[in-house]
Parts: sequence; C-alpha cells; structure tokens
Amino acid sequence: MHVGVDVGGTKVLAVRLADQPAADGQVVVAASAQVPMPGRDAPDAAVEAAVAKAVHEATDGRTPTAVGLSSAGLVDRDGERVRFAAHLPWRDAPVRSRVEELVGAPVSLDNDANCAALAEVTAGAARGASSAVLVTVGTGIGGALVIDGRVVRGANGMAGEFGHMQVVPDGLPCECGLRGCWEQYASGRALERVMRVSLGSHLDGPEVAASARGGDPLARQAFASVGTWLGVGVAGLVSAFDPAVVVIGGGVSAVGDLLLEPARRCLLDALQGAEHRQVPPLVPTRFGPEASAVGAALLARDGRG
Amino acid sequence: MHVGVDVGGTKVLAVRLADQPAADGQVVVAASAQVPMPGRDAPDAAVEAAVAKAVHEATDGRTPTAVGLSSAGLVDRDGERVRFAAHLPWRDAPVRSRVEELVGAPVSLDNDANCAALAEVTAGAARGASSAVLVTVGTGIGGALVIDGRVVRGANGMAGEFGHMQVVPDGLPCECGLRGCWEQYASGRALERVMRVSLGSHLDGPEVAASARGGDPLARQAFASVGTWLGVGVAGLVSAFDPAVVVIGGGVSAVGDLLLEPARRCLLDALQGAEHRQVPPLVPTRFGPEASAVGAALLARDGRG
Repeated sequence: MHVGVDVGGTKVLAVRLADQPAADGQVVVAASAQVPMPGRDAPDAAVEAAVAKAVHEATDGRTPTAVGLSSAGLVDRDGERVRFAAHLPWRDAPVRSRVEELVGAPVSLDNDANCAALAEVTAGAARGASSAVLVTVGTGIGGALVIDGRVVRGANGMAGEFGHMQVVPDGLPCECGLRGCWEQYASGRALERVMRVSLGSHLDGPEVAASARGGDPLARQAFASVGTWLGVGVAGLVSAFDPAVVVIGGGVSAVGDLLLEPARRCLLDALQGAEHRQVPPLVPTRFGPEASAVGAALLARDGRG
Repeated sequence: MHVGVDVGGTKVLAVRLADQPAADGQVVVAASAQVPMPGRDAPDAAVEAAVAKAVHEATDGRTPTAVGLSSAGLVDRDGERVRFAAHLPWRDAPVRSRVEELVGAPVSLDNDANCAALAEVTAGAARGASSAVLVTVGTGIGGALVIDGRVVRGANGMAGEFGHMQVVPDGLPCECGLRGCWEQYASGRALERVMRVSLGSHLDGPEVAASARGGDPLARQAFASVGTWLGVGVAGLVSAFDPAVVVIGGGVSAVGDLLLEPARRCLLDALQGAEHRQVPPLVPTRFGPEASAVGAALLARDGRG
C-alpha cells in the first residue's frame, strides 16, 4: 500500500494507490484525503502531524508499505530536508526522518514539481516520452525537466526553477527581489494583475477563470495575455532542451485551452525555425491538482529512479 | 590514432590525439592541421575533400583508427547527416558515411557545440562536474548541456540552441526571423553593433577585442555590455538547470575576463536567491578554438557515451 502526500501552502493532500495497477499499467488512485495546512507560523510538528493524519485517513488507519512526501519549496538533494518553503514553517528541517517516525513506514521526500513530473512521465501526459518539460502555473511558476525518464535534479537539487528566468529587462518587480521574472507575466498572480491594472477588476484567479469560462471577454483577454507569455517562456525552454513534450500543470492550468491555446500559438511564433523542426506538443497535466501527491506515491513505490 | 575534425564557416581544423594520454589522464593534442573551408556555395564533395585533406595532414598520411567529425549547424540525432548549416553547403547530407569512405576509417559525427562540451567535460574546464552548461559566444550563441557526464541531445538532437531564447520582448530583429533573441545582445555580432550604434565605430569583433585589451575605454564598455547580457542569459540557464559549472567558449570568449567579469557580476545580480545557493563558477573553455575538434577526437575514441 503506497501513499503519496503533497504538502502545499493551504492543504495537505494524501492519495493511496490501488494495490493492483490497471491492466494497461495506468496508475489508479484508490483513496484520497485532505486536511488543512496548519499555516506558515505553526510549529513544524503541527505540519508533520497533519501529514500523518492525512496518511491515516487515506489508509483507513492501516500502516502503509511506504510513503512519498511532496513539499513546496526547496528540498535538499539527498531528500532529507526541506530547506525553505515560503508558505510552510519548515526551515532546514529534517522532514523525511520525522515523518518516517510518525507514520511507521519508510518515507521518501522530494519537491512538488519533481513529484508532479514523476507522475506525468510515469503514468500521465508525458508517459513514454524520452524527455519532457513540466511547467506548473500556479501563484508563481515552477517546473521540472525529465530526461530519459528521470527528473533532472541539478547540482544542488534546484533545477527547474523556471519562474525566475528573466523575460523582460527592468520589468515588473518580483517577490524574489529581481525584476522581469517570467512568473510575473505568466502565473495566477499575473492573471490577477492583468485584470486589475488593465481592466480595472479585482477578481482573484479562480474568479477570473470562472468569468472566462462563462465567456467574459475581459477575462478571456487576461488569459490570452498570460497564455501568450507562457508560450514565450516555453519557447525558450524548448530551444534549450528540445523536449519531446511540454506538460502544463498547476492550478491556473485547470482552465484548459483558454490558457493553452494562446500559449501554443505563441510557441509557434516565438520558436526559432518552428517550421523546420518538430515542435513539441503542449499538453495539460493528466493528474491535475493531484499530480504531486500521485508522484510522491510513485516515489514511494519506485524510488527516485 | 584518433583524429577530430571541426568544420566551421571559414576553416577545417583537424587535431590528432597523442596515442598515450598524459599520466593525469589529460588529453594531449599531438598534431593539428588546418585547411580553408571551400565556401558555402562549393559542392558538398569539396568540403568533404577538405576534411580528408586535414585528416591526411594531421596524421602525416597514415590511416587513423577512427575519426570524429564536428560540424556547425544541425546534425541529425543519429549522427548520420548534417541537416542544415548556414555557412556550409551541406543540406540533409549523409556526411558521416561519405567521409568514412574518403578517410578509410570509422567516422562519428556530431555538432560543434556538443563536441566542444564533450571535450570540456571529459578533459577540460568541466572535468569531473556532475553537470555543466556550455555557452559558445561567437558570431552568434550556441551551447550544450551536460548531465551525468553526457551531452543532452534532446528529442530531435536540437537541445542547446540557447542563442534564440528571447531576452527582450519586441527586441532587436534576429537572422532567425524572431526578435529579441539572446544572441543579438551577447555575441560577436552584438559587440560590433554596440561599437557601431552606441560608439560610432566600425571595428569588427577581433579589432574590438584588441582595442579593449589595449585599454580603450569604449571597447571595454562594449565588452561590459555584451558580458552583462551574457550574464542575464546564463542566470536563466542556471535557474533552469542548476549546473555545477558554466563554461564559456567561442571566439569572443578569447578576450577572457573583459567578457567574463561583467558576466559573473550580472549572474550574481540576476540569479534568484543567489545569496542562498551555490552559484556555479563561470569559467573559460580550456580548449579554446580547438574545443570542437578535440571533442570530435574524443567522440571517435570513446563514442557518444
């Protein structure tokens, strides 16, 4: 019984994989459970207790074979510690061993984008692809790079920090202290800013998405702007990596083609020699908001690969 | 006896490796030979004859054990054909087998940036590094990515096309048809443009380099501009890949710290959380203008790895 737990800024989500994979090798989620994240100012132990509670609920109180843990923020290369996560209390915290003690089963730890990439490449939108880029579009932008079926970790475990690649010189200020970072133009935060600044609205991301789905032209225009900027950055990543497929995940991507279609158009426009090369398909995540938890469960089942 | 041949826009350079590697495992070039490139409008066979001539001269007429061939432009994933190279006549040409027939020895083919990366990671500036980014700053910008000692090829053999990542929205027009490509700001062409547009000079790249080395403040300013833009793009690549080291090669890099120092400063300024992470060293190529030829010889010796 393999369980994956994703610890995000607002909630802790656990999924339990079905013991028998589907006949076609697809991964099946047998149960899931969600508990609130205690908050960034809570003690570390409160977050770890929330993880244990989510595991308990997803397994109906049984002890899992192994648990995979997905965390927002920076996870050290060895998968022992969460170094820093803006919306979580953990600071250089030995989370893996602490949770292992609480759940009574072996625990593996990785960051949420790497886990999501593992899910998509093992059993999702990038399944069977020799290489893939995953871009997660949420409040900010995260991501991961997969080569030969393995998530590229980088020299310090920090590969895939796509959100802070500069796309506009002296551009919009970013929370990271720099200016012109990609995530200022192609994220949930960007979506809200476009609505606010250009269109005078004060909707949050999910409200903009609802309006756009309802046909509101201003909201659609906001997604077109964000999607176009998404395509600009994706074109750069395609030039650099030449992946077989680009998977777009994260909360904002739930709106689907309203975001992806402008991104696809821009990718064709902004990619050098697009007419002379294989342009990778730009596809939505298969596992959606569960991608990181599913990937964590696969990490528990298969190891880091 | 392993020979590497680099076919560039103006010359064909062959190097022969010493049969005995140095005691410390370093690669030693025993001989080299250079013949002019016949020109982009010459028949294919003229270029192939130039390759055979360079091999003949580097080996004193002996038959090599194997030959590695490095070509500018796009090489297919299987290493059989040169698909397209702006300054060479080859168009979807089965160069590997043709040269094999001419030189009477097994031939391996790869593109010049991949060959240069192989040289640097095997025996040069990135030796022993778990991962590396190579950026070649010449007329334009090329590059390669090394992970676990292997050059990342990409789904279509086109990884490492860093020069056409967009760094300025609606920026300077690029030969590729796009606007704002990195190589318009951080290459030999950019250097000449800065001198021409901002400073009213009509020097070419090597002349600007000579002036800068001689202390000319305008020429130094031009290198500072190009170096700073180099740092901007490198910062993006470091965010994406988290390499252990960044190697700067290509003709323009021969000027050394006049280019690299502004790039290093900008890398620190433009990299998210630079104070909280290991910033990779930004170092010059070890093999300089011979890097691609040496890498091709290593390709002949060791295979694609």
